[in-house]
Amino acid sequence: MDTAEFRKRGKEMVDYIADYLETIDKRQVFPDVEPGYLRPLIADCAPQDPESFEDVFKDIEKIIMPGVTHWHSPYFFAYFPAASSFPALLADMLCGGIGCVGFSWAASPACTELETVVLDWLGKMINLPEEFLAEKDGQGGGVIQGSASEATLISLLAARTKTIRRVQSEKPELTEADIMGRLVAYASDQAHTSVERAALIGGVKIKNVSSDDAFSVCGSALKKVLDEDKASGLIPFFFCATLGTTPCCSFDKLLELGPICNKENIWMHIDAAYAGSAFICPEFRHLLNGVEFADSFNFNPHKWLLVNFDCSAMWVKKRSDLIGAFKLEPLYLQHHHQDSGNFIIKRFRSLKLWFVLRMYGVTGLQEHIRKHVRLSHQFEHLVRQDERFEICAEVILGLVCFRLKGSNELNEALLKSINEAKKIHLVPCHLREKFVLRFAICSRTVESTHVKSAWQHISQLKESKLGNIQ
Amino acid sequence: MDTAEFRKRGKEMVDYIADYLETIDKRQVFPDVEPGYLRPLIADCAPQDPESFEDVFKDIEKIIMPGVTHWHSPYFFAYFPAASSFPALLADMLCGGIGCVGFSWAASPACTELETVVLDWLGKMINLPEEFLAEKDGQGGGVIQGSASEATLISLLAARTKTIRRVQSEKPELTEADIMGRLVAYASDQAHTSVERAALIGGVKIKNVSSDDAFSVCGSALKKVLDEDKASGLIPFFFCATLGTTPCCSFDKLLELGPICNKENIWMHIDAAYAGSAFICPEFRHLLNGVEFADSFNFNPHKWLLVNFDCSAMWVKKRSDLIGAFKLEPLYLQHHHQDSGNFIIKRFRSLKLWFVLRMYGVTGLQEHIRKHVRLSHQFEHLVRQDERFEICAEVILGLVCFRLKGSNELNEALLKSINEAKKIHLVPCHLREKFVLRFAICSRTVESTHVKSAWQHISQLKESKLGNIQ
Repeated sequence: MDTAEFRKRGKEMVDYIADYLETIDKRQVFPDVEPGYLRPLIADCAPQDPESFEDVFKDIEKIIMPGVTHWHSPYFFAYFPAASSFPALLADMLCGGIGCVGFSWAASPACTELETVVLDWLGKMINLPEEFLAEKDGQGGGVIQGSASEATLISLLAARTKTIRRVQSEKPELTEADIMGRLVAYASDQAHTSVERAALIGGVKIKNVSSDDAFSVCGSALKKVLDEDKASGLIPFFFCATLGTTPCCSFDKLLELGPICNKENIWMHIDAAYAGSAFICPEFRHLLNGVEFADSFNFNPHKWLLVNFDCSAMWVKKRSDLIGAFKLEPLYLQHHHQDSGNFIIKRFRSLKLWFVLRMYGVTGLQEHIRKHVRLSHQFEHLVRQDERFEICAEVILGLVCFRLKGSNELNEALLKSINEAKKIHLVPCHLREKFVLRFAICSRTVESTHVKSAWQHISQLKESKLGNIQ
Repeated sequence: MDTAEFRKRGKEMVDYIADYLETIDKRQVFPDVEPGYLRPLIADCAPQDPESFEDVFKDIEKIIMPGVTHWHSPYFFAYFPAASSFPALLADMLCGGIGCVGFSWAASPACTELETVVLDWLGKMINLPEEFLAEKDGQGGGVIQGSASEATLISLLAARTKTIRRVQSEKPELTEADIMGRLVAYASDQAHTSVERAALIGGVKIKNVSSDDAFSVCGSALKKVLDEDKASGLIPFFFCATLGTTPCCSFDKLLELGPICNKENIWMHIDAAYAGSAFICPEFRHLLNGVEFADSFNFNPHKWLLVNFDCSAMWVKKRSDLIGAFKLEPLYLQHHHQDSGNFIIKRFRSLKLWFVLRMYGVTGLQEHIRKHVRLSHQFEHLVRQDERFEICAEVILGLVCFRLKGSNELNEALLKSINEAKKIHLVPCHLREKFVLRFAICSRTVESTHVKSAWQHISQLKESKLGNIQ
């Protein structure tokens, strides 16, 4: 394909994407295919000779679309939102066109520098303490990761290295293996599984801290387990607090937890993957109070801030802690002009953050957040009006956890009938012993009418499929 | 921005990218900016109100481009190639438009299934042993990672888990911490720093194995260090072989190393990040002989196979080994229809591999590889004709390591004058005690004339800047 054909095909692709997004509400939100559907539809091996763009293009509707779960449909209420906006799509095209690989300043100065500056912008939008910003040669700063899981892993590894060094300086008789064997990380029993996986990768123990009735970890719960573990010779070194848990969007109590972590030399990482975007609204910023005690903080603009995946924003108070953990001096966290053999490679992901922040402006993004929160309260209100149903956790942002009063089996049957009808798409969670339905406001284009019709649909399914079963 | 504006701006962006790539040879390959250039050019914080697309768009040339190292310029000969092609750009646009998040089959069936099938295609193109393929319910299969570093880390962690379980079953008196403290990984002294970093992350020791005069690790060198380490009570568990090392594109001797690893219960991972793409040509496939002994294999289509970053292809013989290592059952390696709380999230990256394989065909991609190899031999030939210079390692694929006969200082001065002139861009390496210049054939559009003019330029700089200095 030469440049002339790219001009033509690229414009056709722009129209295809515009058509797809403009009419996405007409597509069934969840596909009909069964596992293994795709292999019989395509060849066994790559073609020897080139195929035309037309041949490939027509397979998009024939082979790909029948197997797509339409995350941007206004009838998609599953998981958490996946961000999508036109400014981000345009920036990602540019990112592909430039096609630089940013693993050091020299490999792409613009890529390295824009990321640092735009993460300062974003940090200021959520009123992060100055220590987390890079400007004016600060010791802190932000970096874009691929996911919140990566941010958790990196902070856990940094904490591990820092603790090993500290303990070795205090007790030189201990080997690294001795210390590793005693390290313990902590997170809420509501925390994402990626925290457990980070500990598994890092080769350290991890323990759950019990959350309270509001599914939040409070200071006394952490203190209790710390005291027990220290008494038995373990070394607590890392606590991952969650703001906006995956099951029900609950918030750990930073103002109680932070001082304990600081006193005990425990690295506090905050995972606010979904909820973090809301902190750009002054009325939600109080949920972040206590961040001043943290060593690292992360949230995902690719969830709720209209920046297409992947764009996970992570800030640390001391960049040197990360550099220490990887020994090999990741240049992406430095400000010096320097090359190294260190290939931590990345795409020019800051472009899409820059495009989105500028073309929406802070007010435009605040509107987006507020619309979602308003719609979740609308759904909550509809649920509360129907006495067959109950709300299972406080609705704070864009997620509503609800269920039929009655058995788990009943709720499993309801979810099954919802997802078999495929008019809307939901996923469940467990809150303690209860099977619960999660209704997450997801799409950029979802409106009050979609929420209302989703509720009517759920209500009708209860009538028609479950009748009087309790 | 509404859909109508996206149609307009998207087409403008397609033209901008086409213009950029069509005239990239007119831009200076390496930028003039100094570290910190960008911050003074843009605002201190995000705008409150939306800015127009025009305002943002005009900043691309004003703020971004002055700081871009142009990786796709035909005068870029640094590092290794970063792939870029029009079919991949089109597929990435589609990937953004669909905007699905693939962390389980149900979250996006097409995303999960296309990846598995297309990696079977690619595996067959390089004639991987059947055990590495997923088809027909095989135990092996391929998965797309973000980078070779990730693939190395994942295979090291899988090997760690597997070894700990085996040793614990043989010697139940040992704790996990005891075993971790004795594990040792190995790689060539020429291996990429990401192998050392993987060991650091995994909390295990790593040792260099000495390479021979051709910068290759042979069986006897590995055997020697294994014998010593076993004698002192350590547990060798992982060897990362490199095919196409970063400094000089040398190849470890798989046919000698593989049987040793198999006999000693050592996981053999093969990192062929750059070189792997060449194995689609029958005349280079012999370089992969011995892969049948490996547990995992990885190469980067985003380097040399015209698939834009990121697309790193990894295959394993037993998917269950990876699943074991992460405990949390990564669905992306399974073929069952199943949901879990495991959010290993990914973009629809297989689309670009699918577009490229189909629109180039195997023959088109072979042509691309062969052109690059031909051009590197052309450069080698020019160097060899000039008796002031020497070739420092056998030229096998698209990389030429060369230097002026004489001191390191002389060669450092030559490189400095090349990179200050900014007509072409190179990076150096060290081969043993020697400072060496790396000339890597990189751009998709580089031709014989660019190579010839690059050599004339180097030769003239030697005359004009260094004169008779030796």
